[in-house]
This record gives sequence, structure tokens and C-alpha cells, in this order.
Amino acid sequence: MANPDLEVQGTIDLAEYIYRRLIQLGVGTIHGVPGDYNLTALDYIKPLGLTWAGNGNELNSGYAADGYGRIKGIAAVITAFGVGELSAINAIGGAFAERSPVVHIVGTPPLAAQKARVCMHHTLGNGDYRAFSEMNKYLTVAQASLTDAETAPALVDAALKACVLNSQPVYILLPTNLVHAQVHPPTVPMDLSHPAYDEGYENKVLDTLVEKMQSSKKPVILMDGLTARFHINEEINEFVRLTGFPTLSHPFGKGVVNENLPNYYGSYEGAVGDESTKQQIDDSDLVLSFGPLYSDVNSMGFSSVPRPEVTVTFESHSVRFGTEAADPQGRALHIQSFMTKLIKRLKATELPRIQPFTRGPSFSPTQLQSLKPAADGDAIKQDEFWLRMSEYLKPGDLLVTEAGTPFAGGNTLILPENTILINSCLWLSIGFTLPALQGAALAQREQRQEGHREGARTSGRAILFIGDGSLQMSVQAIGDIIRNRLDATIIVINNDGYTVERVLHGFKKSYNEIQPWRNTLAPSFFGAPEDDPEYPMITAQARNWGELRSVWGRKDVQAGKGLTLIEVFMHYADAPRLLKKLAAYFAEKNKANEARMAV
Amino acid sequence: MANPDLEVQGTIDLAEYIYRRLIQLGVGTIHGVPGDYNLTALDYIKPLGLTWAGNGNELNSGYAADGYGRIKGIAAVITAFGVGELSAINAIGGAFAERSPVVHIVGTPPLAAQKARVCMHHTLGNGDYRAFSEMNKYLTVAQASLTDAETAPALVDAALKACVLNSQPVYILLPTNLVHAQVHPPTVPMDLSHPAYDEGYENKVLDTLVEKMQSSKKPVILMDGLTARFHINEEINEFVRLTGFPTLSHPFGKGVVNENLPNYYGSYEGAVGDESTKQQIDDSDLVLSFGPLYSDVNSMGFSSVPRPEVTVTFESHSVRFGTEAADPQGRALHIQSFMTKLIKRLKATELPRIQPFTRGPSFSPTQLQSLKPAADGDAIKQDEFWLRMSEYLKPGDLLVTEAGTPFAGGNTLILPENTILINSCLWLSIGFTLPALQGAALAQREQRQEGHREGARTSGRAILFIGDGSLQMSVQAIGDIIRNRLDATIIVINNDGYTVERVLHGFKKSYNEIQPWRNTLAPSFFGAPEDDPEYPMITAQARNWGELRSVWGRKDVQAGKGLTLIEVFMHYADAPRLLKKLAAYFAEKNKANEARMAV
Repeated sequence: MANPDLEVQGTIDLAEYIYRRLIQLGVGTIHGVPGDYNLTALDYIKPLGLTWAGNGNELNSGYAADGYGRIKGIAAVITAFGVGELSAINAIGGAFAERSPVVHIVGTPPLAAQKARVCMHHTLGNGDYRAFSEMNKYLTVAQASLTDAETAPALVDAALKACVLNSQPVYILLPTNLVHAQVHPPTVPMDLSHPAYDEGYENKVLDTLVEKMQSSKKPVILMDGLTARFHINEEINEFVRLTGFPTLSHPFGKGVVNENLPNYYGSYEGAVGDESTKQQIDDSDLVLSFGPLYSDVNSMGFSSVPRPEVTVTFESHSVRFGTEAADPQGRALHIQSFMTKLIKRLKATELPRIQPFTRGPSFSPTQLQSLKPAADGDAIKQDEFWLRMSEYLKPGDLLVTEAGTPFAGGNTLILPENTILINSCLWLSIGFTLPALQGAALAQREQRQEGHREGARTSGRAILFIGDGSLQMSVQAIGDIIRNRLDATIIVINNDGYTVERVLHGFKKSYNEIQPWRNTLAPSFFGAPEDDPEYPMITAQARNWGELRSVWGRKDVQAGKGLTLIEVFMHYADAPRLLKKLAAYFAEKNKANEARMAV
Repeated sequence: MANPDLEVQGTIDLAEYIYRRLIQLGVGTIHGVPGDYNLTALDYIKPLGLTWAGNGNELNSGYAADGYGRIKGIAAVITAFGVGELSAINAIGGAFAERSPVVHIVGTPPLAAQKARVCMHHTLGNGDYRAFSEMNKYLTVAQASLTDAETAPALVDAALKACVLNSQPVYILLPTNLVHAQVHPPTVPMDLSHPAYDEGYENKVLDTLVEKMQSSKKPVILMDGLTARFHINEEINEFVRLTGFPTLSHPFGKGVVNENLPNYYGSYEGAVGDESTKQQIDDSDLVLSFGPLYSDVNSMGFSSVPRPEVTVTFESHSVRFGTEAADPQGRALHIQSFMTKLIKRLKATELPRIQPFTRGPSFSPTQLQSLKPAADGDAIKQDEFWLRMSEYLKPGDLLVTEAGTPFAGGNTLILPENTILINSCLWLSIGFTLPALQGAALAQREQRQEGHREGARTSGRAILFIGDGSLQMSVQAIGDIIRNRLDATIIVINNDGYTVERVLHGFKKSYNEIQPWRNTLAPSFFGAPEDDPEYPMITAQARNWGELRSVWGRKDVQAGKGLTLIEVFMHYADAPRLLKKLAAYFAEKNKANEARMAV
């Protein structure tokens, strides 16, 4: 039997070894669902001071781990062989695509059963015990199949290192018969340095960059979402402030840069945004592109990808100039130390005067100022809704915007300082954000409890914007939020189905309709306490501006404590400007493609 | 643009071709979720007279297709590339393991984007467009990657044929740019004969079998669940009746044989069931084993697997004697024609008198008779609950029992004639049954509407038994049931968490607890009409026998029309006899294994 509290003769159980490493890396909560082949491995969680999130299903546990990992730089999820891991696999795919460091631990049948190809439950029945790990190879950057006590710790360490360095998921197979295997406890902290790190190289790249910056007349900074994976927001913002270079965000990168900075010029939307903005960026002689993830959606059909020949691309272990590939000698830098050095250098360097940059008409603060006040009885329209939502935000809020209309609309929000915005721009799996809200809010709460510097900046509010169709995909995460007593505000945009799909195709087709749910019953259904002042349950509906204003006016809604669910009704045909323009742009490109192919 | 109603110059769109073939095979409903890369393919569904189930998420659409396929012998689910298909993949794994014929159609980005490895949304961002189809190879018996109009119809036909012949899932990749590709409509019905079918071989096997039957003194029939995939329940029952051979069911095979037959001897539970039963089967000189799926759970730790040397194994395209492998010449038979011939032969053959078989004490009708009536205030205990539930069942009911306590408890139900029972014995993915209920109930409704002979036997009631933990996994399927206006009764066994896991390990551990939901709010939350006499919504709770009896006594509950949800409370430590005995048996075996390995 397991006795996680006991160390026998200087050794500990293998399962404990894994958890201790995770704790060293900053994991405070394990996400997951219990299953026959992981139960004994769960025995260690509580005694080691970890929290068990206890998700309603595995997909949600994976999504939640993704959200948690984006905040804390590491996350862990435990599922059971076959059924559990496959239920979570779409979330692992998303973490792989959008770079979230998730450690996926799978409890497997004992090795003897595997070797004998026994027809155990949760297997395919054909004796193939390798199928699931083979599948996972496409979605993880390392796989540690633990087979004995001798080799397991090194395999675990290697997988965890790969997870952190790549900020992508890894996969650890823990057979039930090895949970209690005796191993030496970890004595030294994990070495997280890049194996190809070369300080001389880092310095050389720095020199080249500063030179380029000094000779640029029309520089621009483009901020994208993988920058958030560097976990150096402070340095990034210091850099933006010091240079004074015009800075714009791609949708995935929104929230990384402090939008109050005078040199923040809003969102860059390429061919579907302001023409004058695109022109200035096309004319730029130096584009500093941080953490780009140029998917079709994030780059507006690749129209906001800067000209390669003037671009410097900042990634976690490289800074590349123009069209050059990776360093031919395979050398790496660390973006953290690189940026620290860069800031130090810039403080001692005068940058030349640069050409002024002018804002386009769709800059959100401009738009908001020119908005006419809506009458109480007016219907709530998408564009106005998103602009006005800005007035409700507070510094340090955690915002999560679901795929579809919230992704597009959220891009026009005016973010106060220290706001974190989580969205998806590549994987775009609808339903991701509700569990991600759970994971991210939990991670932020831990950061506050741990006295983490990031934690001190948070407001304690966690706000999700999600459409009624997306909500249905992963709705049981509301139960997970309640179980973990997380303060969360869920704003459900009820527009009668999949509006993002309607805009793309099948505008009035029944397949874009959904079963209408009574969404405001959700908190009660999922078991929110009915009379607990420490964890209040608030639900409200708004069908027009008057109702919405009175909801926003409530002190308890503004406090964001406990669980708040607000259902905002909008017309199914209404969509944010960005989404409509993007859909039109895609349609036009498709038509052009078809015409070309028909020739 | 698509015009599914129009046939231009004798050709039709490729998407329509696929649907027409599905219709020929018996598909009436397409399950799935819309997504960017499948929208245009969904345009055909309604015009072709098919129903779109419109599921709340993809995992549920896959599970529902599995349930549908078990009833109709074919099912189809459509998802979108990457995010959609991976969300459904656990359900595809289950269909593969337990042999449900599900056609999984995935709408993919256009081939040109794939070839150019463009960073489209729903991809991994690394240009790898093959990852998901590679993953699917482990879980499907055929993959049709459609790349041009010339070859597509043959690829589709081959995949569909593999699906039906193997009763396992297949995978069809339909790129958006091929949806409207022009192909010739299907002119001939699909050829579903096994390529290795050999009538002479079939007759020879028949002779051998009849010979063996004639010389047996102690024959026994063991019925297992893959027999349901043969779709010849009538012939199977006629065979059992004609032979008079003692017949028992494995848990997965429960419901295949009419339990009213005098030679039905109940459930065979190997080492954890009645000793006298095991003894008689061990002593048998001929075991006719129909559609076996000997997983650890279904075979009670392999203790109910009959002695190979006396066993005849009936599968869809083979009847094998003893330990012999597949026919060395690779010949196949068709179980349908084989059984028809066998019945004809038996009608003209006298079988010798066989030794009497005696029932064990745990035979459910015996158990039920000896039950003392419970007082109104008595707590509801598992074993008594399952026996008494038998009194509520009607001929032709569709029953679905979830993994965990319902799987074990459901094995003691006394089934009236023509009852169909769906459960899982190998994949055992919790949450499977709620969507499977949706799919199976919908399939039965179609069979009734189509005047199918199976449809005429159904009662129209569809009853699910599910634990509170499993319910959470896939709860949005309740919305899908309502959307499709299916008559369904959901009996939620609320025992405060994962009792099946508690019994196995971590009896009082918090990880086996769940967030308590207010389950009876579910129908209302998921949008059941509040005042529609054609589709009533009924909810009730029962905390003791008095309450349960009064719920069962309600006429509307007995009618099973509309959506009924009954929450039955049981103690978390209580479990059906079979589950407790099986857990103890597994624990004992594990201990023995550990002792052996420690030597």
C-alpha cells in the first residue's frame, strides 16, 4: 500500500517523485478525473499539499490545465489509459498548437498485462497497448513511458524539461505497478537551461539588434500571443516604453502590452483593418515581431504578416533577422536574459528620432468616444457592446474570450493595466474557454496566495465572454468552478446558435441552430450554494441596454465575487465588425482561388 | 454553390454521393457538430430527407452514433478537422473496441492548403495535415482520404463496406473543395458480401457443428454481446429455443436471449457467481459461445471464459471449433445465412437427450421471489433496487446501463421479451450511455417510423440507468434528447461520487467525490418545454422505498413519454453484489501477482 508520507531508507515512491518535480516547477493544482488505472497515483496529491481540481470530464480537465499553464508556466493533468486520455486529447492538441506547457500523466494497466496483451478494460481489445502513446506523439514534444525505477526519474525530468522549454505538452505513462516503485528523491532543482544556450551568441544577436534599432527610421513593434509564454511581461512592457516605438497587437497578443502606453496604437488587423495602419506597417523599415503565431485567423488571412526582409522575430530561444533560418550552428539564447540585457543596453543608448505613426479610425478609444448613448430600450449590438464593456473592466482583470464573436469583439476591448486576456487564435476549439477560465482563475488565485509578483497585480476578477453555442460544449466546467470556489463572471452571449458559422456559411441553416438552454439556471444546476455570503451566486439577463446597464451597475456584479452568470441577448445575424470583415475577406479569397482553379 | 436538389448532366455532388450510400445502408440521422470545414457538406442533409441530430459537443455526437449504430447496424457522424474529430475520438475508440459501425466523416481544409502546409485554424500550426488521420488508423478499420472526383466514390464504397462487414468505425476525409465535385450517382446497391465468402465452406462447417451437437451430452450456450452486431436476434432465439440447450448470458450479452425461455439460466459470472453454475459449465462437453468479448470485466477476470477445447465460437464471418485459428484457406461464412441453415437443419434433426442443468441461487427470478417487502422508510439499497426494477420493465423497452454500479446491477434485471439492453464491457468510458441513449432511442424511433420489423417490437420507452458521476461527463446529451424530442427516462443513481472507483481504491478519498449537482434541474436547464402535453417533462426524487414506489406508481412515469428524470439516492458505500465480488476478486488476484513478483 502507498504511504506517501513515509520515506523508506532515503527513497520515495515514483509517483511522489513526479509530484515533487511538478511542485518545484510551480504546479499547485492537479487537474483530471479519477479512473481505474490512476487511483493509486492520486493518493499522493493531498498529502503533498497539492490541490485536486476534480473536473467533470477529461476534455475539460485538459482545457483547464491549458488555461492554468498559460498563467503559471506549467500545468499537470492526470487521466486514465485509453478512455480518459483520448477524451482529453483535443485539449492536448490545443496546448500543442498554441504552446501551453501541460504535463499529461496517464495511469496505465500494469506492465505485465501490457506485455501479455491482456484484454483489460479501457483497451481496444486487440492487445495493442501502444496505440494511444503513438497517437500522442503527434501532439506532445516528449513522451516518457516509465518501465522501471532505475530509468524513470531521468525520463520524467527530461519530459518536464521539454515541457517547460518548448511550452508545449508532454506525455508521461505511469503504469499502476510502478506507482510505488522506490526511487531517490530529487535532490537538485531541475536544470531548465536550453542545451544549446550560448551566451556569446546571445550577446552577438543583441549587438545586431541594437544596431538595427539605431539605424531604423520607421520601426514598429508587433506583439503576438506567444510572447505571453515568455513570462516576462514586465520586461516586454519596459522595452515598449523605453523604445517608444509604435506598438500594435495581433488579436492573439492582445493584453501583453499595456494599452495605456502612449505608443500603443491598438490592434493590427492587416487587410481587414484600417488601411492607413497597414500602409504604415508595410512602409516600416524594421518590424520587431514578438511571439508571432500567424494562423489564417490571427493574421487576417496572412495579410497582417509583416514583410520578412524587415522583420526581427522574437521567440523563446531565438531572435531571428529577416528571412534567416535558425542559427546554422544551432546556438540558442534565452529570451528572458536577452530582454534583460536589451533593456539595460537601451537605457544607456539613445535611439534616433523616428517618423511619427498615426492612428487609424478604428482605434477603440476613438470609437468609444464617438459612440452615441444607447436608449434603454435599444437592442444590444455587438460592436457597441464590446466597446462599452471596456468601461466595466478593472486593472488586473483576467479576461477570457471564446472563439467566434467574443474573439473578434474582444479584440476591440480597451484593456486597463495588468489585464490578462486569454483567447485562442489557431486551434480555435469551441468550448475551450470555460474550462480554461477555471484553470486560469485557479492559477491566479494560487499566485496571489503564494505572494507571486504576478499575483499582486491581479484584481481577483475572472471574466469570460462566451457564446451560447460554445457554452454547450464544455458546460460542466461551471461545476468545476463551483467545486473549486473560484470567483468567476461568465457572460453568455445568447445569439441563438453558431453565429460565427452563420457568417461563414449557412446563414439561416438549421444546422447552425442549437437546442436553446435556460442558461441562467446553470449556477443552480451545477450546485452553486444558494445562501453563502462568502460565495454568492448571481444570475441576470439583459435584453436591451437599459437592462444591461442596470446589471453592470450592481455592486455585487462589479465585485465579481462568487459565481456570476449574465446572459446578454443579441441578434443571431449581428457580428462584430472584425468577424464580418474577415468572413468577407475569406469569401473573396476563396472565390478568387476557385476562379483561378477553374481556368 | 451547392444545389443538392439538382442533378447536372447525370452527375451529383460528391457529398450527396456519400449521403445516398449512407441512406441505402439504413442511415436516417446524421450526428455531429457544425464546424468551419464541414458546413457546406451539411447543406445536403435536410434536402435528402435525413435528420440532423445537432449534438451539443463532438464526444457526445460520437457516443450517440455508437448507440445508433448498435441498433441500426450503421451510423454516421460528421465533425470538423482537428478540433472536432479529436473531441470525438474517444467515442470512435469505443466503437472500435465494442464493434459499433460508425462512419466518421471529417470535413477538412481544401487540398491546396494542405499541400502548401498553410497555417490554417484547427491545425497544429506545424504544417502537419496527416497527424489526425494517422491517429485514426489505430481506431478505424478503413480510412478514405478523398482527393479527387475520379477515385472518391470507390474509396467511399470500400470504407462503408469495411464499416458494415467489421461492424467497426471507418474514417472519411472530405476536403471542402471536393464537396461539390461531380461524380456519378450510385446506380447499384452496395455489395456487402464478404470477399472470402465460400458457401461450400459454410456448409461444411455447418455439418461439423451439427455433428458435435448431436454427440454432446452436456452442451451449453453462452451468449455474449457481439452477437447483437449480427442483427439476427430472431434466429438466435429460435436456435436457443429449438436446441433447448442450457443458455446463459455474459453481462455484455444480456438482452440478446429471451429471458422467458425455459432453458435460459441467467447470467454467467464465472468465479464470482454461483459455484454450481461454474462447475456445470466447466464440466460441459460443448460450449457454444456466441459473439464473445472476453475483457477482464465481462469475463470476471477471465474466469468465465469457457475451456477452449470444448468451445465453438460464433462470429460474424466464422464459426471456429476449439483452439483452431482462422480458416487456413482464409474462407469466410455469413453468420446470418449460417444460422438460417442451422435452424432449418435442426428442425429436421433430433438432438439427443442432454444432462439436466440446475440453476444457481443467484438466479434473479429466484432472488426476487425471496425478497422481503421493504418498508416505506427503508433506504434504497443497490441489490434490492435492481431486482425490483424488473417489475417496472415492459416488453420492448430499450435499456441502457452505464459503467459502474448500473453495469453490475443491470446484470440482475429480469428482462421481458424483446428488451434491448445496451452497455459497455470493454471500453467502459464513463459518460458513454447518456448520448448512446439519445442515439439508440432515435434509431428505434426511425425503425418504428420505417415499419422495420425490429421497430414493431419496441415499447417506445428508452430507459437509462446512470450514476451521478458518469452523468457529469456528457450531460449536455440531455439537451440533444430534448432537441430531437425523444422519449427518454433517465434514472440517476445519486450515490455521492464514483462508487465504482471507491470499491476499487480510495474508498473515502476526496478524489472519488464529485461536485454535487442539482440533477433534477437538468431537464429545465437543457430547455425541455414547460407546458407541452406532447412532450411532458417529469422530474422526481426518491430517497427511500416509499418515495420510489410512489414515483413508479405514476402513470406518466410508466408511460415514459417525453423526458423523465428520476434521481434515486443510495449510500456511497453500497454497490451491487457483482461489483463488490468482482472488486474483491481483482484485489485478491493483484495480491497474488504482487506476491509472485516479489519472490
